[in-house]
Amino acid sequence: MYKLYDFRPSGNGYKVRLLLTQLGISYEYIEKDILQQETRRPDFLAINPNGRIPVLELEPGLYLSESNAILIYLSEGTTYLPQDRLERAYVMQWLFFEQYSHEPYIATSRFLLHYKARDQPEQYQAIIEQKRDPGYAALAVLEQQLSEHPFLVGNQYSIADIALYAYTHVADEGGFDLTRFPAVLAWLARVAAQPNHLKITQAYAQK
Amino acid sequence: MYKLYDFRPSGNGYKVRLLLTQLGISYEYIEKDILQQETRRPDFLAINPNGRIPVLELEPGLYLSESNAILIYLSEGTTYLPQDRLERAYVMQWLFFEQYSHEPYIATSRFLLHYKARDQPEQYQAIIEQKRDPGYAALAVLEQQLSEHPFLVGNQYSIADIALYAYTHVADEGGFDLTRFPAVLAWLARVAAQPNHLKITQAYAQK
Repeated sequence: MYKLYDFRPSGNGYKVRLLLTQLGISYEYIEKDILQQETRRPDFLAINPNGRIPVLELEPGLYLSESNAILIYLSEGTTYLPQDRLERAYVMQWLFFEQYSHEPYIATSRFLLHYKARDQPEQYQAIIEQKRDPGYAALAVLEQQLSEHPFLVGNQYSIADIALYAYTHVADEGGFDLTRFPAVLAWLARVAAQPNHLKITQAYAQK
Repeated sequence: MYKLYDFRPSGNGYKVRLLLTQLGISYEYIEKDILQQETRRPDFLAINPNGRIPVLELEPGLYLSESNAILIYLSEGTTYLPQDRLERAYVMQWLFFEQYSHEPYIATSRFLLHYKARDQPEQYQAIIEQKRDPGYAALAVLEQQLSEHPFLVGNQYSIADIALYAYTHVADEGGFDLTRFPAVLAWLARVAAQPNHLKITQAYAQK
């Protein structure tokens, strides 16, 4: 059985939990609290030298990290990864877009606002403001694509949608106003309506 | 024939040029000067709404962006992308590591030092210093892997090596001291010794 090393509020971890759930794959869940630096301790660095969750233990002692690499691995041969070479290429394009142009702004703003800036808001105000324009730019790229297509690739729900949904649907928790992006909002509803959808854990909000 | 929209000093573009060369695929080269904001103009945004090079035009009007997505697309069915599912998963892991944990520090420091900070060094000193520790952390992850393996995945040269080589081998241009990483240096030499290797254009140094 797979073991997932994860942190409940993480959107990157949520991607993997959502796909595992939709694939009907059961797994053991192992919590690593990044707020307590649990992913920077020697026992975890032996699992992922890069010190980040999620990590999927494929079999005892065999670890795969990087959320989107895990999505690709799990979705091969399923309807969540297109068979068509060109469509698969566009899935990859969106996965890299997510990690480079979206997550560092949308996800990080949520993390800073709900954790770091809670106690020291002044200290993080400048960095959160720097993330605003590139975050909105990423949302605008999504809006353009989704105003013409029901899903990101090939008119069908895929891991590209899972990867982008994870932090987009909680972008408001990072201070982004999603009402500016009606096509994104409609797509979020379509993703949430997929069979066996799973909600993200609202751990930040609970704290 | 493929058309590559690119900027000569870009390591992300260089990845694609290197693989195309090693695959023996000829292509048309179209320069877009990011220093002149040419990738943020309407004609280019119609090609890539995210406003970044490289973009590969697969056939007239059909564009693929994200350097690592292009590497995956071009390498499918070749020795540059492993057939084995697990090895392929680890290639993906390294490609996402590169874009999330390596490029934003190693590549961006090079860009800032050689372009932005040339005229206004004080203005960029703080941001360059912030990138130092995470950049060295990424190099340390590479060092650990390469001290035990000749290449990043499966003891064989793959697109994972191409993706990480691109900015690692010019990390010194971003102020990183590679002599601390002997296994990385030995690997750089192994990559440069591959058949049909291509050098990156040293356009920054020439300016």
